Amino acid sequence: MSQIDANWSFISEGDVTPEGFCFAGISAGLKTSKKKDLALILAPEGSICSGMFTQSKVRASCVEICEKRIKKSSGLVRAILINSGQANACTGNFGTQHFLIATSKISELLGIEEEEVLMCSTGVIGVPIPINNLVKNLPKLVSDLQVNSFQNASEAILTTDLTCKKVAIETNIEGRKVRIAGFAKGSGMIYPNMATMLAFLTCDVGVEKEEWEKMISIAIKKSFNAISVDGETSTNDSFIGINTGKKINKKFLSIIQLGIDIVCQNLAKNIARDGEGANCLLEVLVQGAKHDDDAIRIAKSICNSSLVKTAIHGCDPNWGRIIAAAGNSEVEFNLNHVDLYIGDYQILESGNLCQYDSQKVSDYMKSKMNGKYLEEDIVLIILNLNSGLSKGTAWGCDLSKKYVEINSEYTT
Amino acid sequence: MSQIDANWSFISEGDVTPEGFCFAGISAGLKTSKKKDLALILAPEGSICSGMFTQSKVRASCVEICEKRIKKSSGLVRAILINSGQANACTGNFGTQHFLIATSKISELLGIEEEEVLMCSTGVIGVPIPINNLVKNLPKLVSDLQVNSFQNASEAILTTDLTCKKVAIETNIEGRKVRIAGFAKGSGMIYPNMATMLAFLTCDVGVEKEEWEKMISIAIKKSFNAISVDGETSTNDSFIGINTGKKINKKFLSIIQLGIDIVCQNLAKNIARDGEGANCLLEVLVQGAKHDDDAIRIAKSICNSSLVKTAIHGCDPNWGRIIAAAGNSEVEFNLNHVDLYIGDYQILESGNLCQYDSQKVSDYMKSKMNGKYLEEDIVLIILNLNSGLSKGTAWGCDLSKKYVEINSEYTT
Repeated sequence: MSQIDANWSFISEGDVTPEGFCFAGISAGLKTSKKKDLALILAPEGSICSGMFTQSKVRASCVEICEKRIKKSSGLVRAILINSGQANACTGNFGTQHFLIATSKISELLGIEEEEVLMCSTGVIGVPIPINNLVKNLPKLVSDLQVNSFQNASEAILTTDLTCKKVAIETNIEGRKVRIAGFAKGSGMIYPNMATMLAFLTCDVGVEKEEWEKMISIAIKKSFNAISVDGETSTNDSFIGINTGKKINKKFLSIIQLGIDIVCQNLAKNIARDGEGANCLLEVLVQGAKHDDDAIRIAKSICNSSLVKTAIHGCDPNWGRIIAAAGNSEVEFNLNHVDLYIGDYQILESGNLCQYDSQKVSDYMKSKMNGKYLEEDIVLIILNLNSGLSKGTAWGCDLSKKYVEINSEYTT
Repeated sequence: MSQIDANWSFISEGDVTPEGFCFAGISAGLKTSKKKDLALILAPEGSICSGMFTQSKVRASCVEICEKRIKKSSGLVRAILINSGQANACTGNFGTQHFLIATSKISELLGIEEEEVLMCSTGVIGVPIPINNLVKNLPKLVSDLQVNSFQNASEAILTTDLTCKKVAIETNIEGRKVRIAGFAKGSGMIYPNMATMLAFLTCDVGVEKEEWEKMISIAIKKSFNAISVDGETSTNDSFIGINTGKKINKKFLSIIQLGIDIVCQNLAKNIARDGEGANCLLEVLVQGAKHDDDAIRIAKSICNSSLVKTAIHGCDPNWGRIIAAAGNSEVEFNLNHVDLYIGDYQILESGNLCQYDSQKVSDYMKSKMNGKYLEEDIVLIILNLNSGLSKGTAWGCDLSKKYVEINSEYTT
């Protein structure tokens, strides 16, 4: 257990998750690698669900149907089935067929309404799910449902990810233990405005649908919508957040919001950190902007620049590329006011080049490489526009030959 | 001499260029590599000039001053000085100072007005031009001015480019020989809406300023603004087109427009083809769109996708990524109407997967790799939306480990 802020602490021991939720994750023969590929989340009766989905114009059928079901049921969702290996996007009629077959079977096995079951898919586009394998394994998946199978579920949704992304936090509110937990996948096709990512958040206090949706969207803006691996948006990106519906005094909602923010940012940063071929986490903080949106747009533009990403990979303090990327954000700013820092090293002051030791900046960047998973891998860039009081942060990673290798030879 | 269409032929022999123009290209000690790094174009008296410049919010001083001078002189420009090695962007006061020192000296040496001289720079951002080396070499540069130094000039503007990009074409109009010639540089930081590219076009018939500007912008839309290497826009991107001002009957302007289109497209495709680390030219034709702009936007989105580019590098007919990239263009279309071809192989018909031999499609892609410079390197993707009569083409290249290598270890 380690403290995050005045309220929240990380739960480090075991698979402790919000009360009332069960999880399962198994191998159902959907991936050629025999790794886990099928997960299930079961939420307690009365749970309230919100979802946010890809902004691509080409969306997988599962995305369309999930969105409809959440709307139709007013968010009263009980179960989420997730398969990895196939995105079930661009698969013609199979898209809807396979969704319906799988969710109908789950509803039967769990004794709940079909409309209360969602399904998310991730993996190769255009290849149908081996639906017989999937259906055959559903009874096993359901019988594996446990309070402490959070780890299994988080493993079963991965594709090219090298690590699980999961986090659980807790606090005490009026003597009541409150927990929020989430898990996510994503490694390539990762761009602001959702990404080839799936993320699921569970919370054991109740927040009404409308309020819950608002809280989720605030958290997503500062987390999943502020990361970039490669500028790509997928057909399947989905975030689903469920709370148990167990009411809490409204005055504590700000604490819950903080908790949701922490969980979303933790997962989002771990997606960027685990970017395909990445060796470090790039954190770009833009300060002194006129509006928060401007700040975040510039930060994203820097995180998304191939030339910034390759320079960082080469531990090259090529600050000109950072400024050029900021210039491509479509946000107006005056270069003559700009301060730029890489780590603790000031590079520009009011647009003028400072005296700095280029070798030391390079050494700073080198020291962050392969610190992965230790959270000592953060290359920090701070850009102060000195034109206002707003700020925003975005996260990305370096661009390596490994990224090219992974994506030139992609298999499940 | 090889025929292009009913009117125009390529000039293949020697350095034959439009009448009245002189060129020079020398090494002035601006690059550490001792390669040529300083070029000059001298246009005949009465010439008319138009320019189009980067849309980045951070623009080099040279871009700002060029734009002002063209406006102030109503396009009456005589000389263009170009240096490679340093972009002279984000260099504080040096930006304007060095521009003024260099162009003043050129005007003195050529006996023309200072306002009639432009200067373009390309190379590393944030590093001042070694101005003493540059000034010292200006007399030599001017004395080297020749009708047939087109090749030298086109070499002197290159940075990470592996090849010269130059083209000259000619036709006969009413017994008069008419020529258009252009040269360009660009290899990385290349994205639709200009790129880290400089391009210069010369033409020996006269077209009035307003008309000339219109013709140039039509050509650029279908050429330099339809290519992508890495999604980056630079601080220095510039296109400058000069015609001699020698009037021609207006009824022949459509032939001149065709000629400008040919030269611009030829140069733009060669920039994409020479993209950093590229092994092939990617050509994406989108047909059946409701508007030309929609078609070109989808085509650009596909050309600009890291995942499409890495798939092509791996000769992997991963059509799902093509569709996903089209979905990210913000243009609405119905997937159930879409036909997709890679080369001659049909992949989708009305959104449904066709029977095709994946190995053969991969072999087709393989056969295009390293056909570079032979123009047998074009991987063709055709997407028919079957929703209208409009179409558009964009060009890009594959994304290789070499791109990462070049940009992790960039030196002049």
